[in-house]
Amino acid sequence: MSSSSIAPGDLVLLWAAGGREYFAVAGGDKLHTDLGIVDLKRLEGMEWGSTIESHMGKPFVVLKPRAPDFFKHMRRTGAPMMPKDIGAIIAYTGVGPSDVILDAGTGSGVLAVYLGTIAKKVITYESNEQFASNARKNIELAGLANVEVRHGDILLEMEKLEGPFDVVTLDMQDAAAVVPGALRVLRPGGFLAAYSPFFEQAAETRRAVERAGFSEADTIIVGEQELEVGRRGTRPSTRVGHTGFITIARK
Amino acid sequence: MSSSSIAPGDLVLLWAAGGREYFAVAGGDKLHTDLGIVDLKRLEGMEWGSTIESHMGKPFVVLKPRAPDFFKHMRRTGAPMMPKDIGAIIAYTGVGPSDVILDAGTGSGVLAVYLGTIAKKVITYESNEQFASNARKNIELAGLANVEVRHGDILLEMEKLEGPFDVVTLDMQDAAAVVPGALRVLRPGGFLAAYSPFFEQAAETRRAVERAGFSEADTIIVGEQELEVGRRGTRPSTRVGHTGFITIARK
Amino acid sequence: MSSSSIAPGDLVLLWAAGGREYFAVAGGDKLHTDLGIVDLKRLEGMEWGSTIESHMGKPFVVLKPRAPDFFKHMRRTGAPMMPKDIGAIIAYTGVGPSDVILDAGTGSGVLAVYLGTIAKKVITYESNEQFASNARKNIELAGLANVEVRHGDILLEMEKLEGPFDVVTLDMQDAAAVVPGALRVLRPGGFLAAYSPFFEQAAETRRAVERAGFSEADTIIVGEQELEVGRRGTRPSTRVGHTGFITIARK
Amino acid sequence: MSSSSIAPGDLVLLWAAGGREYFAVAGGDKLHTDLGIVDLKRLEGMEWGSTIESHMGKPFVVLKPRAPDFFKHMRRTGAPMMPKDIGAIIAYTGVGPSDVILDAGTGSGVLAVYLGTIAKKVITYESNEQFASNARKNIELAGLANVEVRHGDILLEMEKLEGPFDVVTLDMQDAAAVVPGALRVLRPGGFLAAYSPFFEQAAETRRAVERAGFSEADTIIVGEQELEVGRRGTRPSTRVGHTGFITIARK
Repeated sequence: MSSSSIAPGDLVLLWAAGGREYFAVAGGDKLHTDLGIVDLKRLEGMEWGSTIESHMGKPFVVLKPRAPDFFKHMRRTGAPMMPKDIGAIIAYTGVGPSDVILDAGTGSGVLAVYLGTIAKKVITYESNEQFASNARKNIELAGLANVEVRHGDILLEMEKLEGPFDVVTLDMQDAAAVVPGALRVLRPGGFLAAYSPFFEQAAETRRAVERAGFSEADTIIVGEQELEVGRRGTRPSTRVGHTGFITIARK
Repeated sequence: MSSSSIAPGDLVLLWAAGGREYFAVAGGDKLHTDLGIVDLKRLEGMEWGSTIESHMGKPFVVLKPRAPDFFKHMRRTGAPMMPKDIGAIIAYTGVGPSDVILDAGTGSGVLAVYLGTIAKKVITYESNEQFASNARKNIELAGLANVEVRHGDILLEMEKLEGPFDVVTLDMQDAAAVVPGALRVLRPGGFLAAYSPFFEQAAETRRAVERAGFSEADTIIVGEQELEVGRRGTRPSTRVGHTGFITIARK
Repeated sequence: MSSSSIAPGDLVLLWAAGGREYFAVAGGDKLHTDLGIVDLKRLEGMEWGSTIESHMGKPFVVLKPRAPDFFKHMRRTGAPMMPKDIGAIIAYTGVGPSDVILDAGTGSGVLAVYLGTIAKKVITYESNEQFASNARKNIELAGLANVEVRHGDILLEMEKLEGPFDVVTLDMQDAAAVVPGALRVLRPGGFLAAYSPFFEQAAETRRAVERAGFSEADTIIVGEQELEVGRRGTRPSTRVGHTGFITIARK
Repeated sequence: MSSSSIAPGDLVLLWAAGGREYFAVAGGDKLHTDLGIVDLKRLEGMEWGSTIESHMGKPFVVLKPRAPDFFKHMRRTGAPMMPKDIGAIIAYTGVGPSDVILDAGTGSGVLAVYLGTIAKKVITYESNEQFASNARKNIELAGLANVEVRHGDILLEMEKLEGPFDVVTLDMQDAAAVVPGALRVLRPGGFLAAYSPFFEQAAETRRAVERAGFSEADTIIVGEQELEVGRRGTRPSTRVGHTGFITIARK
């Protein structure tokens, strides 16, 4: 099965009782935590899932971090796209390990990180320099060398891009303006996915997609409700996830 | 960017005007279609996205097939899991290219194929021999050598499995009975995702997850509605996707 | 309890096995049906819920018709407002038997009929003469003398109305234009309810309500899903009711 | 139009700037408020919607209270049924001014009060004496002499009831057990509406309805989402109303 011993440079998640979690790199320096100092050199050769102790004798389970861990620990500069929407984009565009993806605007980098855990390469544009800088830190935290954040205006920069990209993802106010360029840089059969929090924007993007000449297009709303399973019975929760609209189009 | 010329053995999707689509293998024999015969040898060295003609002069665009293409063309032995639910499972469990995944029951193989386009290895169990055989054909169609369909009862077979698996996915009536075994074969920090079409089954699975001792658990309903963007205005469609319940739990 | 014998002039619903239903007036002429002729004079003095036979000996249960019967039997000139939306309007505006209500556009008259079964008086405007004429027939079928259909443009006619109305209901494309006049003719504390099938129209109406100076406003989407209760389990249906947006505002 | 001057004994709602509201009876004693004392004798003969001042010169608009006012001001002994669900019950059963309705369990009396603002008579059973007493106060506040709260177990008391009732409404855990008796006391063509917060209970009630021999049955989930209309655009809110299941059946 999958290799279960830790190599130098591997990103690890140290999990302590009570919900404290720390990202670290195996073979690195000492990690200072509220529960004492952990010697990261000692992680090399350990089995994933085994336990390491701090100098105070506090135990940490050593986990291989997964995308939901990055999602949870990323520093957010705005409301991030939610996993239900990220999942719908991945499934409807069919993101896979050989894909080269163009993304804009990066925001906190949540979508770029998720895509980066699967795809070969992700190039993501963010026009706000502070957001771009924060996203770079989030991507570094996730140890994703294949995700590149570029500070700039995708509308201007796109003309210099050649592609072909397998997938283009957009989460920005002016998505409609970027649609014709997205069609140009996409590989035939490649997919565009544009996320819009507002109806007006979703309708505008969808119309831009139809004008641009994509071969297929759908706009969907993905809802999510928790099911509360209690002693008295089972019922949907009254909280729902933040809702947006996703336009999926194929070249 | 990603390599754009076709090698022998590559799976291709031939796309003709009017919606006719054919899967084929580059370098293979001749493909007989309603629009004439296509010489698959000639695909070698062509660029992805270029056009090949049948002996009748009918053009086909040559596409690199993606997961939604497999979803569309798989022969179904029952109601398949829908992309919105597959996407939620991928995003909430964080499926990535290094993952080894255990899946049961296979059904038509829709989930296994989607997982197989991303993960390193998928082992999927199906107790119905006819379904298993059909799923194998679907997986062959998708060219996924890393997805293995096993005919058998997961409840019995699981004891022989060692794991560790990064993710376990279940889409079967007796999911609750499989939950304790799933916990055993999961890697620490790994995820279980169990899909249930009925409330009763969802509640039972969720209770089994809590009894088994997973560290986190949520049960969600993922809804999907199309947004109709017409000349008179924009509104949600009255069709909704088939709805199920997904229990996500972490070891 | 409520009087249970039938008086001349009472509207009755004759219910035959196999789903055949006929509206009739007690004390009227003979009713010709597929199951023979029913002598409507004989209905006088019968108990509600008893059975009357046609000249061919076929039995009909004699029911007091209710609003859902009118809804089912009205001739429709377009997609009618659905009971879930009608119910939300009734509950959020608090329609009661002393209310005088202004309604526009009538359409098939579904909302006007529902309101007419509860309120003291309903005046409803329809600009399309054919629709107005069809609605009058539907209202006559329902035996509602308190519902008056006026053919005309509510925007022009409203200036001649004095009110005060307890409730104003709008189901028309230009609802936003009618909002200021609605505020004028409403009694203080009275409610406006405007139904919009499209987002654009809903947003426009809501903005008009806020500009006009109503004291409270909410726009809601009311969804409805059937619960399928089968032998294998319970689950939401994949059909959903036609969805619209309702803006409720109070003077 | 509707009479617009206030008679002695009329229930009024006094509305002050800043959201302060008081129920009072025209012709009654003096009302002590945070904004001074209001002489209720002076309300007689005033127009609805006019303004009365307290002894401190603070103005109150005099409104005719409507069902949503009662809903807002009732003292709650548990989670009340929401207007969207109340509206669906009214519309699907066709509640009108000639109806005699049987209701159980009363809870805070929210449904009984709503039904009482429309129907001729409502008899409502509550097994918890404290709840029954609180509901009586809520009904008195709403000035509804036609709503009678009975403290007792509907299962036992039902045998003594003759009916016929036009509508029976149930909001209680053991609704399924009451279903056969409800069928007996309903007028032919009359409706049962049973509200269940949990799936298990909804399925049980629906099965009881089918066993009992009602002629039609549906179970629905009514959802409600607010539409947020802001400067940047329009989108559904992430809050949804408390969701329950309503089984509607016809005798």
